[in-house]
Amino acid sequence: MARVVHKYGGTSVATADHIKRVARRLEACHANGDQVVAVVSAMGKRTDELYALASEITHHPEPREMDVLLSTGEMVTSTLLSMALHELGLDAVSLTGAQAGIRTTAVYGRARISGIQTERMERELEAGRVVIVAGFQGVSEDFDVTTFGRGGSDTTAVALAAALEADRCEIFTDVAGVYTADPRVCSAARPLREIGYEEMLELATTGARVMHARAVEIGELYDVAIRVASSFDDDAPGTLIHGEMTMEQGNKVRGIAHQDHVAKITVRGVPDRPGIAAHLFEPLADAEVSVDTIVQNASVEKLTDMTFTVAPTDLDDALRVVEAVKTELGAAEVVSEPDLGTVSIVGTGMASAPGFAARMFRTLYDQNINVDMISTSDIRITCVISSERVGDAVRSLHDAFELDRED
Amino acid sequence: MARVVHKYGGTSVATADHIKRVARRLEACHANGDQVVAVVSAMGKRTDELYALASEITHHPEPREMDVLLSTGEMVTSTLLSMALHELGLDAVSLTGAQAGIRTTAVYGRARISGIQTERMERELEAGRVVIVAGFQGVSEDFDVTTFGRGGSDTTAVALAAALEADRCEIFTDVAGVYTADPRVCSAARPLREIGYEEMLELATTGARVMHARAVEIGELYDVAIRVASSFDDDAPGTLIHGEMTMEQGNKVRGIAHQDHVAKITVRGVPDRPGIAAHLFEPLADAEVSVDTIVQNASVEKLTDMTFTVAPTDLDDALRVVEAVKTELGAAEVVSEPDLGTVSIVGTGMASAPGFAARMFRTLYDQNINVDMISTSDIRITCVISSERVGDAVRSLHDAFELDRED
Repeated sequence: MARVVHKYGGTSVATADHIKRVARRLEACHANGDQVVAVVSAMGKRTDELYALASEITHHPEPREMDVLLSTGEMVTSTLLSMALHELGLDAVSLTGAQAGIRTTAVYGRARISGIQTERMERELEAGRVVIVAGFQGVSEDFDVTTFGRGGSDTTAVALAAALEADRCEIFTDVAGVYTADPRVCSAARPLREIGYEEMLELATTGARVMHARAVEIGELYDVAIRVASSFDDDAPGTLIHGEMTMEQGNKVRGIAHQDHVAKITVRGVPDRPGIAAHLFEPLADAEVSVDTIVQNASVEKLTDMTFTVAPTDLDDALRVVEAVKTELGAAEVVSEPDLGTVSIVGTGMASAPGFAARMFRTLYDQNINVDMISTSDIRITCVISSERVGDAVRSLHDAFELDRED
Repeated sequence: MARVVHKYGGTSVATADHIKRVARRLEACHANGDQVVAVVSAMGKRTDELYALASEITHHPEPREMDVLLSTGEMVTSTLLSMALHELGLDAVSLTGAQAGIRTTAVYGRARISGIQTERMERELEAGRVVIVAGFQGVSEDFDVTTFGRGGSDTTAVALAAALEADRCEIFTDVAGVYTADPRVCSAARPLREIGYEEMLELATTGARVMHARAVEIGELYDVAIRVASSFDDDAPGTLIHGEMTMEQGNKVRGIAHQDHVAKITVRGVPDRPGIAAHLFEPLADAEVSVDTIVQNASVEKLTDMTFTVAPTDLDDALRVVEAVKTELGAAEVVSEPDLGTVSIVGTGMASAPGFAARMFRTLYDQNINVDMISTSDIRITCVISSERVGDAVRSLHDAFELDRED
């Protein structure tokens, strides 16, 4: 007997028929003798509908109220799935985040899990019931509903798998797993059999939105092996995200991530003294502008340039903030470029093998793609390039690093 | 400073604009310095939509799951109303039934309130917040969501008014109050200024569905004066439901209630011995057939007739049950009539003034309406008549008892 946690995203539970199909999958799992916990998202576009409802009332919804509102989407799915299991003759029980014992910080819209009290779930599992948990939500110390932000149901699933010491955590989605690149951009892209947590994080945060980064972080922290697979294709093996990579998987580019649209701001001619980064980025954080890649060039004649990227939607806010601190920083000028994108190669061990960077730059050069900015980590090399060349870059890099070949 | 509980039904919160209008009403109330608690129903037809969703999954939804599903409708409204109040600059907080401390029995779909823990509500009111409570729901000892059945938000409002020792409980709906008769049937009908609990109960259970009977019962039990008024007309005074009636209001017909459709079953020639009623009605109860008016005629030669009414939708089930026990009862035959209705006059003190009954029968006779069956209580006389004559009966009785005149 194994204990398994499944998670079904919005497209997998979009209609009553989808929910019945999920129920049959869970039935098969239960028939194996497994203890089954299923985490569900809101049906199809329900979360968007709830956002739209709120926007008819106000453009600045109270975060506490927004969380209660959004949490109803997952509650609805959880009850319908439980009913569908009863219809198949199985005993099942739906639990809200609060009932599942998911305690969080009181930061509405992006609460973090502080602990999980598993007694109720354990009791239901012992009684032979399939436990359906409404994803994406928990409850604060004050018994107020909190949500985890977009993709939060992944976080629920992996956290429950950790707390319940589950044997498996399986994320069912509308794609066949984690791809070597976005298949909409690169037709040669294929699902990976397995990938490491760190690599997955780099892919996720740099544009491959198969799974929420926080869920992967929790998986790494508690050593939960996560399988990402299609809920529409029972035969596809999906991708296993885990910590133990075989020797062959290391030292290799595993995937190409990209972002179609980023904007770049450069603060030129800043006197090079301690604290300039803090003076620049603290007010940006205060204005809730999320800054992505940051590059500071080596200084020339005690003057340096600071460059960073932001989402295009944040560009105006960011420029206002930067212009306001420009004098304080003693900067010569502020310039920005709106129509950029990024392309990244991701894989462990790249830092110790400089050939990867060289091959990446050569590939882009051969395609006549100009590299505007470079940023690296131990397992990733990112180039900022023209937005309109992102697709060409992904395809040529996928080819250059032979990602169309099986693992 | 007064403490008031408002309740807004589904039609009063059907759209974002409706919800904003409710918010402005609450704002005005709060500006008076009052402490305000608002209980809300699900928006418009949302409860029906949730039933429809469940019926796509199964025709026998698990009652526990149904309750969680339905409870989301009221949760959505409560958050949107809270947001609308924030938009007006007021501090407000939405509470689920569980958060409002409403403890119930674990009978899903028709839970009864066992107690209300008011600490959280008191704390929020003390902090100057408008408290919005999702109606129709509570939580069992096991922390499972329960609902009160249709009209349950009225029950929530009156129970909260009792527990919070509110000065007023106001039920806002889409009609101007409790009418002397159904205005769709009788154009002369007008809203009553006031009515007693018992009279209201007789009107409510005999067809005037302005307010849920259980809510009135709680009002009577805890002596909560309830005002029923239109949320669409600020100037209309509505109807006050309370216990202290002035001398003029007693001994008078207060309203005409009716049911358009009932079915009648008569069990003929039953040997008159102890226990026959039990032998007949216990199996009906077991089959969940709700029996309305029951009449047993005086026996002739130790044989009696038992007659009772049921909802037309329950007629087939009821007949099956009765046919099955017919032999055991020693009954001669079972006959039924499907196309009947009822008309009732309601008012305190009718039992001590036989003239009311006589005038009712004379009025129906003058209209050539045949009375099929009669049933009385201290404050009500009900006649079962042909379904197609119900409208005529209501109008002629309204006229005969001069109900078009002001109180």
